Amino acid sequence: MGLPSPRLIALDWGTSALRAYLLADDATVLDVRSRPWGIMHLPPGGFPAAFHDTVGDWRDAHPGVPAIAAGMVGSAQGWVEAAYCPCPAGPQELARVVRQVDIGGNAVLHIIPGVEQRGAAPNVMRGEETQIVGALGLDPALRERALLVLPGTHCKWVDIRAGRIERFETFMTGELFSVLCEHTILGRPARAAEPLPAPAWPAFARGVDLIREAGERGLAPNLFLARSLVLNGTLQPAESLDFLSGLLIGEELRVALRNSPADSLVLIGEAALCGRYQRAFAQFGYPDVRRIENVSPAGLWHIAAMAGLLGASASSASPETTP
Amino acid sequence: MGLPSPRLIALDWGTSALRAYLLADDATVLDVRSRPWGIMHLPPGGFPAAFHDTVGDWRDAHPGVPAIAAGMVGSAQGWVEAAYCPCPAGPQELARVVRQVDIGGNAVLHIIPGVEQRGAAPNVMRGEETQIVGALGLDPALRERALLVLPGTHCKWVDIRAGRIERFETFMTGELFSVLCEHTILGRPARAAEPLPAPAWPAFARGVDLIREAGERGLAPNLFLARSLVLNGTLQPAESLDFLSGLLIGEELRVALRNSPADSLVLIGEAALCGRYQRAFAQFGYPDVRRIENVSPAGLWHIAAMAGLLGASASSASPETTP
Repeated sequence: MGLPSPRLIALDWGTSALRAYLLADDATVLDVRSRPWGIMHLPPGGFPAAFHDTVGDWRDAHPGVPAIAAGMVGSAQGWVEAAYCPCPAGPQELARVVRQVDIGGNAVLHIIPGVEQRGAAPNVMRGEETQIVGALGLDPALRERALLVLPGTHCKWVDIRAGRIERFETFMTGELFSVLCEHTILGRPARAAEPLPAPAWPAFARGVDLIREAGERGLAPNLFLARSLVLNGTLQPAESLDFLSGLLIGEELRVALRNSPADSLVLIGEAALCGRYQRAFAQFGYPDVRRIENVSPAGLWHIAAMAGLLGASASSASPETTP
Repeated sequence: MGLPSPRLIALDWGTSALRAYLLADDATVLDVRSRPWGIMHLPPGGFPAAFHDTVGDWRDAHPGVPAIAAGMVGSAQGWVEAAYCPCPAGPQELARVVRQVDIGGNAVLHIIPGVEQRGAAPNVMRGEETQIVGALGLDPALRERALLVLPGTHCKWVDIRAGRIERFETFMTGELFSVLCEHTILGRPARAAEPLPAPAWPAFARGVDLIREAGERGLAPNLFLARSLVLNGTLQPAESLDFLSGLLIGEELRVALRNSPADSLVLIGEAALCGRYQRAFAQFGYPDVRRIENVSPAGLWHIAAMAGLLGASASSASPETTP
């Protein structure tokens, strides 16, 4: 047998970065490229230029290979707006409403929509739906019922039922941490201090425990501790950001775990950030929360297959995506 | 009788502004000046230049009149550091630890310390202690027992017992609102919209109610609504900041009013911001929370009197500051 042949060009195109995969059957990654061209940081020429510069040679070398993308590229500020797919949403529902944008040469880029929760608790995600489809593809045991946690700028807590996104919540923990560090008095001591070579885990754990013990009073009256503990000398300036991280992640877990979830609890995302959540989960009595990684290529592959972009053989290679 | 004669130069010197009062007996304001020279925005020449430029002519015209200041001018980043006075703290305790800084011509500026809460819930204030002393001077009925709320960058909730600051909490509501508006995705729609001519009170009330009804789940899972309600078209971009303000003030009240306070509840501060809190208080079942204004001159006067800066007559003019 020769090398597996390319079957799909798959893009994870978010706000701050663009990652492109060249995939063979079963989402095997043949090649991968990262560019700093998130939708808010495009090169001259905009979306078409970013696309052709990143994957143009793949398209020339493998004519006819389809292309699909997920993430903010389908938002109102994206290349073309792909309207949200309402909950409950799984790969079938998503595949049904994939949008297309002309990329020249009689070809199109398929764009996966985000997911919208309607009703009394309106919510949106865009990009995470594809990671979730990937995770459920990689670990079919999660499909029946699971609680998936995707840390990041806007952390998502997602209830999975029968292979679909049933409902979800958003915690702005990542963005909140970032602006508190960069723009408020809480970040000032650390901004002036020598950065630590490694996270200050005891300070992080102290922040998590403090919020856990605060109970329903929660974060609001305790956030300022990231300053007053530095002022009274019991928290070192350089450690104060890890303490703050512990407060914020602690608040997220305090609220989200209030009614102890019975479902399988799984983290999806990057190792360092998920490691932080794993430590916090352990402090809340969940010591074995595991992590699934590299979910994006699998998700892009599954949705492309469902959308019929990969022909009959590839589509039938993932029959398990139908609950 | 002629005009009352000047007895005190009194400065409210914070992070972003300097306000100077020329006071006669009983804290009567003879003249007032505002400068943009907060301790982080000093003119060339620093603290001495700012001081002399602002009140030098008062000092020349009224030689021997003492000068006193409160606020961040006494912080580690201030003119001279005035170490915190521990709780419980009233005018006597504050007056006892006033610091001095040389201002030339054999004269000094007296600097009022902040207040520190030690123990399990460490906390600090600087500047608010003087406003509180002023409020208790203006309304002696509050001295025995009251709950004072001072909205602002770092909102303070202060328990008063027997004329002194017994304990207090800090909510970073003002600073949080500011950075969320200016630096996060929540502020983006409003930043791009035409500013409203007046606050969008229905949007504000909606935010407050939403948090009140959220109960102990609180703000964390609901903050992102300031985005998803704009995306689903049920909140106008220009109104979204007032909605966000309602969420944040609502969270503060939800936590602080959890155990219904039995004490007199009084707001101290600027009319527009206190008006916002009054509306939120009404939604939480406290329709008659009143406001005390212009407390700074009274506070500076009382502490100066306690510190013996005004001679026997002035000091005895405020015997009621001793519980």
